Amino acid sequence: MKIFLAEYAGFCFGVKRAINLAIETAKNTKGKVYTYGPIIHNQEVVSKFEKQGIISVDDISKIEEGSSIIIRTHGVSPDKIQEFKKRNFNIIDATCPFVKKAQKFVEQLVNEGYQVVIIGESDHPEVKGICGFAGNNAIVVKDVEEVEKIPKFQKIGVVVQTTQSMENFKNVVSCLLEKALEFKIFNTICDATKKRQDSVLKLAKEVDIMIILGGYNSANTKHLAEICSSVGVEVYHIENSAELKEVWFKGKDKVGVAAGASTPDWIINEVVECLKKF
Amino acid sequence: MKIFLAEYAGFCFGVKRAINLAIETAKNTKGKVYTYGPIIHNQEVVSKFEKQGIISVDDISKIEEGSSIIIRTHGVSPDKIQEFKKRNFNIIDATCPFVKKAQKFVEQLVNEGYQVVIIGESDHPEVKGICGFAGNNAIVVKDVEEVEKIPKFQKIGVVVQTTQSMENFKNVVSCLLEKALEFKIFNTICDATKKRQDSVLKLAKEVDIMIILGGYNSANTKHLAEICSSVGVEVYHIENSAELKEVWFKGKDKVGVAAGASTPDWIINEVVECLKKF
Repeated sequence: MKIFLAEYAGFCFGVKRAINLAIETAKNTKGKVYTYGPIIHNQEVVSKFEKQGIISVDDISKIEEGSSIIIRTHGVSPDKIQEFKKRNFNIIDATCPFVKKAQKFVEQLVNEGYQVVIIGESDHPEVKGICGFAGNNAIVVKDVEEVEKIPKFQKIGVVVQTTQSMENFKNVVSCLLEKALEFKIFNTICDATKKRQDSVLKLAKEVDIMIILGGYNSANTKHLAEICSSVGVEVYHIENSAELKEVWFKGKDKVGVAAGASTPDWIINEVVECLKKF
Repeated sequence: MKIFLAEYAGFCFGVKRAINLAIETAKNTKGKVYTYGPIIHNQEVVSKFEKQGIISVDDISKIEEGSSIIIRTHGVSPDKIQEFKKRNFNIIDATCPFVKKAQKFVEQLVNEGYQVVIIGESDHPEVKGICGFAGNNAIVVKDVEEVEKIPKFQKIGVVVQTTQSMENFKNVVSCLLEKALEFKIFNTICDATKKRQDSVLKLAKEVDIMIILGGYNSANTKHLAEICSSVGVEVYHIENSAELKEVWFKGKDKVGVAAGASTPDWIINEVVECLKKF
């Protein structure tokens, strides 16, 4: 059985930057450092960090005034930053620069009088954060079916969750064209996402089975698995090598491996080593 | 055989306005009045007008200084207006208000630094006129295939020929999303066009055969025939009742009749009367 790794897999620029910022902050801080929510969608990394005193919190009322708090790649709403400031937190902003761009575009769209529409998942932290920049007046749509339910507006301004697929972005925008006469649209899908998706699409067409690595709640990883399904290849979305089942690979010649933006290299390597043994 | 007329058929608001302006101008003018190109895409109307001293010209060098010249619904480029002024013409502007809007949007897009893309037919007078408002720097694409050939830009601004179909507009925009990261899009398809297309689509699904009336070089009429083909109904695009062939209607129960924006009521009535005899 031959193993092929996708050309672009694993940690993206934004995630690497956030992880480095967290490690550096922990080094320079006496006592604990907090991340507002898990630093990345990967339980193994989060557990490893905990041992280094980098603790994920969801409820900031539980941490002491003046603590160091890291804003993860997904970013947060302006309201949340105000709360942090009120509590006198030392804020370390690791918001992905691509997410930051989407936040700024939303502010601009609001100022220019557009009804903001965000293409993405309404319960994803990145999307929740971006919504905050529209004064929580944005409409979030995840697909064509959701667009059909929204009313008509004079002017619609669009941004897209950085980890969405280009395919869904195009379908949703096409459908949105029925909902207004004027549009301003920013394609805020990040470059790393596009490259990762393109390399997965290429690989999925050439192999008999695809293993997609990444957290189950990682939006970008889920999209990678969807891309594989769309070309009809057998695909398994797993979080680590312990979940691999030898039976999947019976009679398979070529196996492709790809990983979401929040999957560290050591998890990818473990999976590849495990596959070699099968 | 039952005959059904589309709910919206024939002269639109812009065409009615242009025809009235031409008739009024001819009344108040000693000698001839000129239209820059045929007033509408309908040879019978043009011939009728000629007898009233309203003459279509393509080459303005052939007409005397100070003449009255009517700009038809399609509009003209700013260069052309300058030429008219140089020749001291009395300009009567019958540009359709919807076309005028598209021209203004293009000017705005250029000022805001967008590469202008016009969705439509590059050799159509309306599109040629609109191009002039982008300093002849606009790209014209008629369909998805043409979009694939254009390079990438930083910012793309879009308007659409007023008589295009919503379907093509959506497909082309969706494909254009690959060509830039920022877009400003104005849906300049005119309301009358949309209503006419919707009513033809509805009727085409309910009858056995469709007769589409209008000039062979009328863009909006051609789109009506395309809409009929897309639902699989037998369709004939004709200019007047003389072209009707009884054999088309053999074994047909229900016939639908629709007409483009430049088809006068008397031509529609003639066709309906002729069908009644079959």
